[in-house]
Amino acid sequence: MATATPYRQLEQEFRRLHAFRGVLALLRWDAAVTMPRASADVRGDQLAALQIECHTLLVSPRISRLLDRADANARGLADWQSANLREMRRLHDHAIATPPTLVARIARTVALAEARWREAREQNDFGVLAPHLAEVVKLTRTKGELLAQRFGLDPWDALADEFTPGLLSRDIDAIFTPLSQRLPTLVTEAMEVQAGRQVTPIEGRFSASRQRGLCTDVMKALGFPFDRGRFDESDHPFTEGVPGDIRVTAKFNPRDPFQGLLGALHETGQALYDLGLPSEWVDQPVGQDRGMALEESQSLLLEMIVGRSKAFVSWLRPLLEKHYGAAGPEWSEGNLYCCLNRVERGPNRMDADELTYQTHIGLRYELERRLFSGELAVKDLREAWNELSADRLGLVPVSDVEGCLQDIHWALGSFGHFPSYGVGAVIAGQFWEAIREQHPGIETEIAAGQFSSLLAWLRERVHAMGAKLGVPQLVEYATGRTLSAAPFLRYLERKYVSEF
Amino acid sequence: MATATPYRQLEQEFRRLHAFRGVLALLRWDAAVTMPRASADVRGDQLAALQIECHTLLVSPRISRLLDRADANARGLADWQSANLREMRRLHDHAIATPPTLVARIARTVALAEARWREAREQNDFGVLAPHLAEVVKLTRTKGELLAQRFGLDPWDALADEFTPGLLSRDIDAIFTPLSQRLPTLVTEAMEVQAGRQVTPIEGRFSASRQRGLCTDVMKALGFPFDRGRFDESDHPFTEGVPGDIRVTAKFNPRDPFQGLLGALHETGQALYDLGLPSEWVDQPVGQDRGMALEESQSLLLEMIVGRSKAFVSWLRPLLEKHYGAAGPEWSEGNLYCCLNRVERGPNRMDADELTYQTHIGLRYELERRLFSGELAVKDLREAWNELSADRLGLVPVSDVEGCLQDIHWALGSFGHFPSYGVGAVIAGQFWEAIREQHPGIETEIAAGQFSSLLAWLRERVHAMGAKLGVPQLVEYATGRTLSAAPFLRYLERKYVSEF
Repeated sequence: MATATPYRQLEQEFRRLHAFRGVLALLRWDAAVTMPRASADVRGDQLAALQIECHTLLVSPRISRLLDRADANARGLADWQSANLREMRRLHDHAIATPPTLVARIARTVALAEARWREAREQNDFGVLAPHLAEVVKLTRTKGELLAQRFGLDPWDALADEFTPGLLSRDIDAIFTPLSQRLPTLVTEAMEVQAGRQVTPIEGRFSASRQRGLCTDVMKALGFPFDRGRFDESDHPFTEGVPGDIRVTAKFNPRDPFQGLLGALHETGQALYDLGLPSEWVDQPVGQDRGMALEESQSLLLEMIVGRSKAFVSWLRPLLEKHYGAAGPEWSEGNLYCCLNRVERGPNRMDADELTYQTHIGLRYELERRLFSGELAVKDLREAWNELSADRLGLVPVSDVEGCLQDIHWALGSFGHFPSYGVGAVIAGQFWEAIREQHPGIETEIAAGQFSSLLAWLRERVHAMGAKLGVPQLVEYATGRTLSAAPFLRYLERKYVSEF
Repeated sequence: MATATPYRQLEQEFRRLHAFRGVLALLRWDAAVTMPRASADVRGDQLAALQIECHTLLVSPRISRLLDRADANARGLADWQSANLREMRRLHDHAIATPPTLVARIARTVALAEARWREAREQNDFGVLAPHLAEVVKLTRTKGELLAQRFGLDPWDALADEFTPGLLSRDIDAIFTPLSQRLPTLVTEAMEVQAGRQVTPIEGRFSASRQRGLCTDVMKALGFPFDRGRFDESDHPFTEGVPGDIRVTAKFNPRDPFQGLLGALHETGQALYDLGLPSEWVDQPVGQDRGMALEESQSLLLEMIVGRSKAFVSWLRPLLEKHYGAAGPEWSEGNLYCCLNRVERGPNRMDADELTYQTHIGLRYELERRLFSGELAVKDLREAWNELSADRLGLVPVSDVEGCLQDIHWALGSFGHFPSYGVGAVIAGQFWEAIREQHPGIETEIAAGQFSSLLAWLRERVHAMGAKLGVPQLVEYATGRTLSAAPFLRYLERKYVSEF
């Protein structure tokens, strides 16, 4: 038997890694959905053992050696194989750049900061978190610098590469600058348009089982495969698993008929992305999704653009009647559409509408860059947050909980994460424009509950590409145009002003 | 920092192994309870990857080296540490005795034989399975011979060591011989006693949710910790997990008010055993259960001895009223007791009562030894089965499905497994006699729903010993007497003849 080439041996090793990652996903899903509540310590040991195993595999001298030998013989590789080799190298370099001692220190510091973040929220006092956050920022900066050396990038860019692979901060700036120029006035215009509409709030109690029935019908129509996936409840909605066993959760609020559904749409977007990844590369790095920004684009396309469109609302109405017994004027298509697309300036990112959400992201991006560079000290974050909030949102948070203690991301050392939400929305807008151009009847189809053209486009142009291209290249491949904020802005202007 | 001793390093390695085994348990639980039905291929890859990881860890040159060095320095070890080292060695020797090529061949052959067993059952024709079973027997024999060389045991004994550690075939013979001498007449006597009783069959429909409610109440009374364990439904009842996250399942038959409950009692027995294992050794080999026979003893003690006793039935009656609305003469304690303890000769092991069950096991044990030694050819198994069945049970199975195609064990290469069921029952009988001697009021307690003395005895004498002693030594430690069939026979005689 001939020895496999270094590249083939790498494929074998990464196949193991893929299996372990699938197992990790199941452990997390179980912890959130089915695990007995006092079993967290057992689960913690299992997760840690398996994570260490993955890390050890990834940074092993054997992998380093095989990567070097495969790189030296890369000429014989096909297109996808080359891309796979590049992704293997990328994962290996990310893992090996941070020495185990730093990894352990970050893990400890972050665990403490997370606990302090919860306490700080309970006491509504950023001061409780501040010293720990300062430590997290310091360690994350060190990590960024080590990654930067390895990748020849700016430290923040090197961290953000995990969320938006192939997108540098100058690309992100090129996206966010036009948004921050246009959005403030657009928000005002949209609010003026909406001020002229009478909206009847939808009230009542909507049981979890009814909400689940509605979500299941919608997910079935979208093509979620219930024989290779599950839909459950958890404290926070999420998607876990691997293509072939994908698991989506929702959280149902009995006072809100839509929050659960919109969450399920968000997660279904990600699940369909995972399910559409190139099947022959499913257990290889190149067969994975293209990072957070792309995942978010798939989620927001369904949750925000499709799921709150007039066409979708028109298809949804009879389903609301079926599951909620919805009757009365507040359930008219027009009223539903207004309820689902209400623009309002508020302090909270998670509750924000599609327009003001971008302002929340812009604010965090700006503060994150200043924190990371050291220009802004952690102890001054509250003040800076409140100032920027007054300037951008026209309001000062009434408390730290409503302000700089809103999000857990920084306490977890996740720098470079926030922009991917905004970039995801922009990509979704660009995809949507391309889909509408190529399928002029797409809205008629959606109104009839036909999602096959939409899905086919996404599968062929986006999902099937896996991680073969960088984020900007993938967007260009899919739409034929350079990644830009313009389509998203055109979509927002049409939806919230000219066609509202 | 001083380097850890070889023994301490081994503890570290086996801690990892324990985490992986807990993960494997969760993967199996999920596959049986929550996994989407078409995701078996994904799960198969995950299980295989993790099993290979466990095997690789166990047979690694590093472990061999550490074991040799720890053995050379064993004098400084405490009692439990020595036992732990011995168990580490045992696991390692078992794993390394079978070369990977043979492991792979057995895995393939067994997978095929399992599929053929199902087909053979569908076609009611042992001939479909026979050639594949012959191959399994051949390979299992080779494995037994390799293990035998390593352990200095007879090949069948070496295989059975996995199920009944420390018990040789001559010990098993010493248990089964008196049983096979006494049981045939005891069955006749019991059937004569029962013939004089009028029994009213219990009919009705018992919904899964009512059965679940009943089981949950019973499990709570027995001390099953629902905050560190789960109770679900699956096609076959089983227990999976690790102390700290233990998961029991049942199967409910709407026409049978007791099958689900008795299954749950069986599994709860095993779960309580796992939960009572010595907590400071929980992640080490010596902290595991003492094999199949001991597990079975804990299951049968609850399902057969306690769960079908007059005392238990008397406590259960009000619960049956609560959950099933049980009323009418067929729900009287006397009638319930007769229904639960009916003795009847039948062809089927799984449906057999406590008395004839032993005959089924004896039959299999005899055939298994003859198959394994080559004295009986696989092609002649049907004839031998039917002959022995006529001789021991007084009936010839009407079909292969009711006869030699009943069990999957041999097709899976599980030789040495069947006797552990019988030995388990015998051990349960010996434990029960000791408990009654030391707690003369035990039946009064059970009738009052008080299980703490029972549990405390089992925890202290059995569970807390983990795998420190061999099976016969553990029984002697717990009861103060040599392992023997006599207490079990005394129990059966009292229950089915003198006190029925």
